[in-house]
Amino acid sequence: MTVQEPATTLARQHVQQRVELAVSTVIFALRPHPVSGEPTIWLPLVRRIREPHLGQWALPGGPLESDEDLAASARHTLERTTGLAPHYLEQLYAFGRVDRSPDRVVSIVYWALVRAEEDAQSVVGDNVEWFVADEVPELAFDHNDIVDYALTRLRAKITYSPIAYGFLPEEFTLAQLREVYEAVLGRRLDPANFRRQALRTLKATGRCLSGRSHRPPALYRFDPSTIRPTTLTFPEEPR
Amino acid sequence: MTVQEPATTLARQHVQQRVELAVSTVIFALRPHPVSGEPTIWLPLVRRIREPHLGQWALPGGPLESDEDLAASARHTLERTTGLAPHYLEQLYAFGRVDRSPDRVVSIVYWALVRAEEDAQSVVGDNVEWFVADEVPELAFDHNDIVDYALTRLRAKITYSPIAYGFLPEEFTLAQLREVYEAVLGRRLDPANFRRQALRTLKATGRCLSGRSHRPPALYRFDPSTIRPTTLTFPEEPR
Repeated sequence: MTVQEPATTLARQHVQQRVELAVSTVIFALRPHPVSGEPTIWLPLVRRIREPHLGQWALPGGPLESDEDLAASARHTLERTTGLAPHYLEQLYAFGRVDRSPDRVVSIVYWALVRAEEDAQSVVGDNVEWFVADEVPELAFDHNDIVDYALTRLRAKITYSPIAYGFLPEEFTLAQLREVYEAVLGRRLDPANFRRQALRTLKATGRCLSGRSHRPPALYRFDPSTIRPTTLTFPEEPR
Repeated sequence: MTVQEPATTLARQHVQQRVELAVSTVIFALRPHPVSGEPTIWLPLVRRIREPHLGQWALPGGPLESDEDLAASARHTLERTTGLAPHYLEQLYAFGRVDRSPDRVVSIVYWALVRAEEDAQSVVGDNVEWFVADEVPELAFDHNDIVDYALTRLRAKITYSPIAYGFLPEEFTLAQLREVYEAVLGRRLDPANFRRQALRTLKATGRCLSGRSHRPPALYRFDPSTIRPTTLTFPEEPR
């Protein structure tokens, strides 16, 4: 830059502080609540080891490397935080408020749903701790808003999409499926009503859960052919 | 940077080419198809005046200013491209493939739906031209993928959310509402069936469309109280 440059360019360069891009990941798993024992949504957080917000808990993530795709960045964070590579990983939202960080950082947030059998393989990374999602402490930056947003999306989306299966193995019992809905929605569901509705979208495998001698429960799979093609149905979620 | 820095830092800085952040906007309006005359989805594109892709059509947008929120950036692009400030503006998705541009650019894409009465006020910005959304030419970068993604989302979302009202004034006739669904879904709908389904989510205003002497059609409003609260319903969209 030289002094010959016009004033408008100088002004523009003054505004053009660098915008940093980060990828953060909300990782949901279902585990028993520490008090009630009921299946509950948990997520891992990372204690910050540098300023700003040194020592506070934050969502796992980091700056986007220039040679890395967005989802690859989220997968690396997942691997580093939990040792896992969950089946369900999806872009959630980009958070970019000017005042969300002392530097200008836009975070593209992914979310992952962890199956019980994946969760059983998880390891706890450095400075990582798991929390009940509805009971997280005050987090760094706007990460409380991000967790709230992810929970709201999860609770809405489970009512109109097959997202519940993200928490389940390929084959599962009706009781396991209901447990997922109850954990996400935070309330008990009537087993008979649930069964009637759930069976519309399931395929019986003809197998039963092994290891139970007396009336072992039947195993089902999600039947993707029951997803309705685009048809004229009317509002079921606020926009 | 000095030669005293350890090799790992140098390697890291080599990888850490700057990641640029852009905000682009897909602006949908309904206008008559140039051949059939049927209401059709259109969008404005901007001819690029610099490399890469000099002279090609692209989605309107630009780099994120460091002092600008993401949605504010999209609103400025909208204003610059069409002179409009539509009611419906929403974040769509972040596109970040490493190879989508010669430089590393992540684009956070917003979409806007333009009401007919807003569209009537629109102006055409410099280097801007409107195209039928399903008939756009080969666009710069991955913008054809982005347009396809936005169309797919629009066609899915209109089946389970009140997004259709983004194209309509506060009060509208049943024929106007059906026209929106037909334009988005690209097919004719049975008027009697449509009427029956639509009335579930509408409130009669008691007024009629003026300026028609003979049997003027009734005007309706969307009734937000008909949006079902979170209930246990089952898959209606692929995840």
